[in-house]
Amino acid sequence: MNKTELTALLKKVESGDISAKEAAERIRLDSYDDLGYAKIDVQRGIRQGANEVVLGESKTKEQICGIVKHILSSSSDSVLITRLSDEAAEFLKNEIELFYDSVSKIGIAGKRNTACGKGCIVVATGGTSDIPVAEEAALTAEYYGNRVERLYDVGVAGLQRLLDNVDVLAGAKAVVAVAGMEGALASVIGGLVDCPVVAVPTSVGYGSSFEGIAALLSMLNSCAAGVSVVNIDNGFGAGYIANMINNR
Amino acid sequence: MNKTELTALLKKVESGDISAKEAAERIRLDSYDDLGYAKIDVQRGIRQGANEVVLGESKTKEQICGIVKHILSSSSDSVLITRLSDEAAEFLKNEIELFYDSVSKIGIAGKRNTACGKGCIVVATGGTSDIPVAEEAALTAEYYGNRVERLYDVGVAGLQRLLDNVDVLAGAKAVVAVAGMEGALASVIGGLVDCPVVAVPTSVGYGSSFEGIAALLSMLNSCAAGVSVVNIDNGFGAGYIANMINNR
Amino acid sequence: MNKTELTALLKKVESGDISAKEAAERIRLDSYDDLGYAKIDVQRGIRQGANEVVLGESKTKEQICGIVKHILSSSSDSVLITRLSDEAAEFLKNEIELFYDSVSKIGIAGKRNTACGKGCIVVATGGTSDIPVAEEAALTAEYYGNRVERLYDVGVAGLQRLLDNVDVLAGAKAVVAVAGMEGALASVIGGLVDCPVVAVPTSVGYGSSFEGIAALLSMLNSCAAGVSVVNIDNGFGAGYIANMINNR
Amino acid sequence: MNKTELTALLKKVESGDISAKEAAERIRLDSYDDLGYAKIDVQRGIRQGANEVVLGESKTKEQICGIVKHILSSSSDSVLITRLSDEAAEFLKNEIELFYDSVSKIGIAGKRNTACGKGCIVVATGGTSDIPVAEEAALTAEYYGNRVERLYDVGVAGLQRLLDNVDVLAGAKAVVAVAGMEGALASVIGGLVDCPVVAVPTSVGYGSSFEGIAALLSMLNSCAAGVSVVNIDNGFGAGYIANMINNR
Amino acid sequence: MNKTELTALLKKVESGDISAKEAAERIRLDSYDDLGYAKIDVQRGIRQGANEVVLGESKTKEQICGIVKHILSSSSDSVLITRLSDEAAEFLKNEIELFYDSVSKIGIAGKRNTACGKGCIVVATGGTSDIPVAEEAALTAEYYGNRVERLYDVGVAGLQRLLDNVDVLAGAKAVVAVAGMEGALASVIGGLVDCPVVAVPTSVGYGSSFEGIAALLSMLNSCAAGVSVVNIDNGFGAGYIANMINNR
Amino acid sequence: MNKTELTALLKKVESGDISAKEAAERIRLDSYDDLGYAKIDVQRGIRQGANEVVLGESKTKEQICGIVKHILSSSSDSVLITRLSDEAAEFLKNEIELFYDSVSKIGIAGKRNTACGKGCIVVATGGTSDIPVAEEAALTAEYYGNRVERLYDVGVAGLQRLLDNVDVLAGAKAVVAVAGMEGALASVIGGLVDCPVVAVPTSVGYGSSFEGIAALLSMLNSCAAGVSVVNIDNGFGAGYIANMINNR
Amino acid sequence: MNKTELTALLKKVESGDISAKEAAERIRLDSYDDLGYAKIDVQRGIRQGANEVVLGESKTKEQICGIVKHILSSSSDSVLITRLSDEAAEFLKNEIELFYDSVSKIGIAGKRNTACGKGCIVVATGGTSDIPVAEEAALTAEYYGNRVERLYDVGVAGLQRLLDNVDVLAGAKAVVAVAGMEGALASVIGGLVDCPVVAVPTSVGYGSSFEGIAALLSMLNSCAAGVSVVNIDNGFGAGYIANMINNR
Amino acid sequence: MNKTELTALLKKVESGDISAKEAAERIRLDSYDDLGYAKIDVQRGIRQGANEVVLGESKTKEQICGIVKHILSSSSDSVLITRLSDEAAEFLKNEIELFYDSVSKIGIAGKRNTACGKGCIVVATGGTSDIPVAEEAALTAEYYGNRVERLYDVGVAGLQRLLDNVDVLAGAKAVVAVAGMEGALASVIGGLVDCPVVAVPTSVGYGSSFEGIAALLSMLNSCAAGVSVVNIDNGFGAGYIANMINNR
Repeated sequence: MNKTELTALLKKVESGDISAKEAAERIRLDSYDDLGYAKIDVQRGIRQGANEVVLGESKTKEQICGIVKHILSSSSDSVLITRLSDEAAEFLKNEIELFYDSVSKIGIAGKRNTACGKGCIVVATGGTSDIPVAEEAALTAEYYGNRVERLYDVGVAGLQRLLDNVDVLAGAKAVVAVAGMEGALASVIGGLVDCPVVAVPTSVGYGSSFEGIAALLSMLNSCAAGVSVVNIDNGFGAGYIANMINNR
Repeated sequence: MNKTELTALLKKVESGDISAKEAAERIRLDSYDDLGYAKIDVQRGIRQGANEVVLGESKTKEQICGIVKHILSSSSDSVLITRLSDEAAEFLKNEIELFYDSVSKIGIAGKRNTACGKGCIVVATGGTSDIPVAEEAALTAEYYGNRVERLYDVGVAGLQRLLDNVDVLAGAKAVVAVAGMEGALASVIGGLVDCPVVAVPTSVGYGSSFEGIAALLSMLNSCAAGVSVVNIDNGFGAGYIANMINNR
Repeated sequence: MNKTELTALLKKVESGDISAKEAAERIRLDSYDDLGYAKIDVQRGIRQGANEVVLGESKTKEQICGIVKHILSSSSDSVLITRLSDEAAEFLKNEIELFYDSVSKIGIAGKRNTACGKGCIVVATGGTSDIPVAEEAALTAEYYGNRVERLYDVGVAGLQRLLDNVDVLAGAKAVVAVAGMEGALASVIGGLVDCPVVAVPTSVGYGSSFEGIAALLSMLNSCAAGVSVVNIDNGFGAGYIANMINNR
Repeated sequence: MNKTELTALLKKVESGDISAKEAAERIRLDSYDDLGYAKIDVQRGIRQGANEVVLGESKTKEQICGIVKHILSSSSDSVLITRLSDEAAEFLKNEIELFYDSVSKIGIAGKRNTACGKGCIVVATGGTSDIPVAEEAALTAEYYGNRVERLYDVGVAGLQRLLDNVDVLAGAKAVVAVAGMEGALASVIGGLVDCPVVAVPTSVGYGSSFEGIAALLSMLNSCAAGVSVVNIDNGFGAGYIANMINNR
Repeated sequence: MNKTELTALLKKVESGDISAKEAAERIRLDSYDDLGYAKIDVQRGIRQGANEVVLGESKTKEQICGIVKHILSSSSDSVLITRLSDEAAEFLKNEIELFYDSVSKIGIAGKRNTACGKGCIVVATGGTSDIPVAEEAALTAEYYGNRVERLYDVGVAGLQRLLDNVDVLAGAKAVVAVAGMEGALASVIGGLVDCPVVAVPTSVGYGSSFEGIAALLSMLNSCAAGVSVVNIDNGFGAGYIANMINNR
Repeated sequence: MNKTELTALLKKVESGDISAKEAAERIRLDSYDDLGYAKIDVQRGIRQGANEVVLGESKTKEQICGIVKHILSSSSDSVLITRLSDEAAEFLKNEIELFYDSVSKIGIAGKRNTACGKGCIVVATGGTSDIPVAEEAALTAEYYGNRVERLYDVGVAGLQRLLDNVDVLAGAKAVVAVAGMEGALASVIGGLVDCPVVAVPTSVGYGSSFEGIAALLSMLNSCAAGVSVVNIDNGFGAGYIANMINNR
Repeated sequence: MNKTELTALLKKVESGDISAKEAAERIRLDSYDDLGYAKIDVQRGIRQGANEVVLGESKTKEQICGIVKHILSSSSDSVLITRLSDEAAEFLKNEIELFYDSVSKIGIAGKRNTACGKGCIVVATGGTSDIPVAEEAALTAEYYGNRVERLYDVGVAGLQRLLDNVDVLAGAKAVVAVAGMEGALASVIGGLVDCPVVAVPTSVGYGSSFEGIAALLSMLNSCAAGVSVVNIDNGFGAGYIANMINNR
Repeated sequence: MNKTELTALLKKVESGDISAKEAAERIRLDSYDDLGYAKIDVQRGIRQGANEVVLGESKTKEQICGIVKHILSSSSDSVLITRLSDEAAEFLKNEIELFYDSVSKIGIAGKRNTACGKGCIVVATGGTSDIPVAEEAALTAEYYGNRVERLYDVGVAGLQRLLDNVDVLAGAKAVVAVAGMEGALASVIGGLVDCPVVAVPTSVGYGSSFEGIAALLSMLNSCAAGVSVVNIDNGFGAGYIANMINNR
């Protein structure tokens, strides 16, 4: 059920053409659409303030395409797709309008939001190698209409790079701290700001970084209060939460 | 340096009695107080909007007492103490004014805040055994002036207990979800609300709960967006972040 | 020894041509057939009520073919093969009659059972990406003659999708719950039904899902009684157990 | 709401004293009872065919007592309590009628079921040290009315002890296999029977048994089909599932 | 220093051409040969009763070739090479006389021993997929002159396959038990024989087999005395130890 | 069935009083004795050449006493008990004749073997703290009639202590290498001797020794061939295997 | 800012052309150069005595090239690049002057230092397979002007290879001990020398070496004092620290 | 052999009373003293420049006393004892002259060194709770004659505390960085100094700090070059290495 249909339905209630109870029933029945391989949560926008997002990983390109087309035709004029492979993006571009960023593997189907929110979200990284995950966070936050400030390669081994940007941090409503290896960035930023820090461990590193476990544990044990953590490499999740915080 | 002293100092600058540079120097020198075994961050309140909190665990009762007394006498009229043992609380009560909750091991030295913030923070638990951690979160949030709603024992094995309280969840500015064992509560709540969920895994359980690891991993992998995670049993951290979100 | 041979042998006993003792000896000697690289348990059907199943993984295609041909020629008119690669399936199709499903990697050599059992087994998944494992379970259960109801993509982040199908769950004699990431599906279903839930963690996810460990631990710690767990991605095992339960 | 109250309510509907809608509302509101520290799922018996069970661990003895008394007075005439410490049992005995087995830490408040089900459940252990967990399973199964056969100390290092009891195993509708150390018992039994085997790893052992992890992994990787696994030391869960299977 | 050189040297001592001290010095200096990238322990045969073995993995084919040629020309007329890739074997065959088994990745350069020792070593596997590791053990034992009996695919899920071969086991001086998944084979054999069992966990399996960890832990925790364990997939080590035991 | 009874039975067969078949049946029935909480493998001595050993840990002192008394009265004149607590030893001493060593927690009930085998077993430790585990190995080996040479505190940090005893090592038929921390002792000894080395990791150490995991992994990865490993702190197992090797 | 520019600037201060304050400001602003994807710490040479090193892994070849060119043009006449892939090296060679060692994956852009320091650093390996990591350490140490002695393939399984080189070790100011598998080399060397040993675990090995974890734990638990550890395969880090020690 | 004896022996060589060869033999034989439960490395002082240190943990107080007395009477006038329990210290004080610090559990038997080395070693901690481990490092370094500067409670959550002491750090010849929780201190210090940083993870923290693993991994993955790591809580090792570096 898209918005037009919803409005039409509600108008019929207003006019007495159908009872409120009957309308409620139709909406309820519509609360997800069943494609067989996927049950699309079409009213998440109403319930949670953000449309269903499609995780591209582990789905076939045909499944992604089917889901995205269905959402675009029924409940939203744009869809965020994460972890979209280059190959699947190529496939989708032939079928629908798609913005695609191959660094972060983010795709945006349909209309791309360009509005800019009130507060600012800072996305910081420890190093250059963390940028793909950081961009996933930044593009997600921008997709939901937030202004994003990028502070890349400000890891703690050269502290002046971070300290020189304390004013940028001071202006943030939420900070996304992205780091691999020892993940110390989250703690150091956590000690400098008065807003929540959403920490994203990355799988950057080798040996005992254990694909991001070192950074994950480091961030969970941050000695600075105000730091919470999402899954390794989960830039999307961090951007999404930062958006929620900025819009509180 | 407490507020009175700070104000006095700044007035001298205003009157020209001392130069701005000299004042800055004095403030900088005062930026922490050194007790030898502890360097107290006396201006965290100015920098981060919340005074230094004392982690009672692994400190001797004499060290805790010394630190708390110093803060009370210099930079704040109350101090939050976490993981304070019954024995150390007994010791402190002879020395200072102390509120102590033996379930959550939270102590509040000096004046206890009773003001009530604008938005509401919901603290939910999966079971009865998670209550000590939940109370740590709730009392922390209340200490910082937030209104807290408690939803205890609403685990997913009896879903009606949670669904019956959807309206309570709907009114939250932030939810703290506290659960051990499989930690599914965070995901289920995450799918129902439009505000950030701060998940706290607890060490409740046995066998392959591995002292909270099962719940921790479960929460980090939540299929619901909007969930971030703090350390196992870290009720304080969750309450602190929920306060930050509510005050954005 | 195939059934014809067995019957012939037993008739000789009846007619007194050979002693019962001698016949027993021959049957015992026949209790497995030795191909050198494999010892085929030809009387598992008699002992356990289900013929030997062939795990295709880690065997050469020649070994699989040899084993399957031997079973078809001696003790059964169909063989279930799991984790059969596309390449090995191609090879087998040139040698024997084979049904092959490339999503679940299930192969069925010889005659495919189409009979339909008395009770119903529900196979549910948290997401679209869990379908290959779920199909392994569903096809296994169908192979053994059970009726299977599929409930795909009913993960807990959009609870209405599951609650809308409570009646389907209520009709089950056993439920197979397939989920990766945080694996909360098993607990939620476990709290809604009065039959055993066989939980299958999947390796779907990334980062701290640790190839299915997060879901595995979550399911082992289910707060709902009635949930038992099989190996990560072991759809076959779950389908097999569900069949056993349905036929109790 | 106990059964008498429920019947009375439904009679009022029958007589027209209250509307069906109003009755439904009352039942819904009654679907759990809120003690503050616990929300008791009073209609689990109706929904799942087995009353709420109380996990004694991590609750204070006062909380256990409060919950048990509430259930006895409202929805059931007996309550199963697991992991009940000797000390809490002592406390409860002064307040209510209680059967207590200090080996398995099982308590049964109120009337103890002595009825005996149709099929037989076999509970087997690898060694003498696994008996406490096995008794938790056996007493649970007996509580729900099943006949239980105990086969203790039949570990695979002395295979004749198990093989000598193959006929006992052959008569089972479900087997609970309890073992620590290498947990091989589950696989060996799984290869001998045609009913589901619910495997319970125990924390018996030392060194690299890692408090039951070795047995847990062993059981999850059983080469015998038909084996599913519950949490380490979770005798209760296994007994509960075996009961469900026997009553299919 | 090869044997001829050693004999020549010792004869010079006998004849008084050089002093014993000088000879000792030369032997000592010769105790390894330095190729730069490798220091070859040319007198291990004298010290340990078995020549240096070359681990092919992680070496370039040129390095392997250089080491093997050096040993053949100095201290031995054959060399065992383990984990030799097909590609490196191809390369070596152009340079030296080489027996190569592509299943076990064992290569034997120079003369292949065909002598047959006094006692018998049994190499048993749980399944067909364990054969490559088992062959590494068997070929190693045969290389050192032992008689080897192979018992493949005798896993515990079909116990009759093992019990039918108890007499073979009874004749062993040492048993090598090779198994992946739950690794129960080692315990069951350990309970049947009166000689040492060298257990080799294999990386066969998936999911929670964790590349052989499940089998490793299972074997380390064997309830049967007499079982010791080598590294995952280390067929060579097991064959080598079995040889040592057989030659005690 | 003790030896006298067995001989009497066999004589009856000889004299024709009972048939061989009947005798075999009686022996088979006697193959274990069932105490309810334990099934004693009374003919392990015949099958495996060593009587049943009692693991004292996790059994009540009454269970240990019952099992030991039963064995002494039926199938053996002495019983080895491992991991016997001081308290249980005290209890047993009042009931039976018992040798007890409180360092290794080894108990020997009944007659203590003082015979001395042909070959020599060397038991070596890395440090003083490993002695309890080493004594468990040494006393076990002596119990089975082997001569044991003790080399304690010869860890690799002071290599001269080990090198000074190379001649002792050279005379061994088997070496038991006991070490915690980094467990390097096994590799170094493995490179010096031509007999099997049974390595026992100990839980000695702190921090990242992880209760013996560091030593365990180190020993499993020994670069010296000829090293096999038993469970952490399993001195008994190592002594038992060394005995088996010495008696090959 | 390169050295010439820095000198020029300081001369202007001397001559009074600009104020000291202005100069300080310029230096501060120059404390890093921002390329967007990287913030180059151009004054690390002044602060830490060694220029910024570029980690090639996880960066695109364009990013590496951009960073290296920037450093060469601003703050240094040579740059060390670690973990540089063959492909990226090929790319760089077309753009800048580059020394590249494909074994260690070390690249040196610009002028290569050939000066030779006062003390000697010994780099030792357990086996041939550890050489790539050892060369990373050795080339790093040489890059910073140290004399390096290589002792390769001196693992503890053939102790004479190490003992024969005790004099080389005795002359070291620092030793880098590189080993995989059980990593015993570090402890043995640690017991022989009077200088710090920097241990580098390598991912060489298989099975329970767990990609270097076995060696890592072994080295962390070294019974020899004087051993500290860097990350698995981190030859660079070890060479860098050895340089620091040699230049104390 | 103490120094007097050694000098006497060498004088006999000088005077020709005994041959050099004979003297060498005596020294070699004396290279350790055998107490049965311990082999004391009496010439470590000559070989490694530091006398044998006694690890108090896991030894009986009688063993510690025996070892210490032996060293004092033979090869040194003072002995460092680590991890000495209060109880054992009490026992020793009755037997020998002992300095004991109950915070760090360091004991020094015999004469306590008060000399002060040339360079300075800085020992820094993240928090107050890390002080016991830090004191172990500091007292060790002082025992070997180094000047030690303590910087306690300078964790990264209040960065000004560390930055305010940059000059102290700048004067160090080696820094020991002691921290639990996320262990970020090592990386931040590593980025500020030009000398080696020896990082000591501590077991301070809870939940996912996993007894120091989080800090350990963090430190091993430090993005700052120049950081090496010792075992969790191994203050002694860090102090010992810092001494070695300072005396290079």
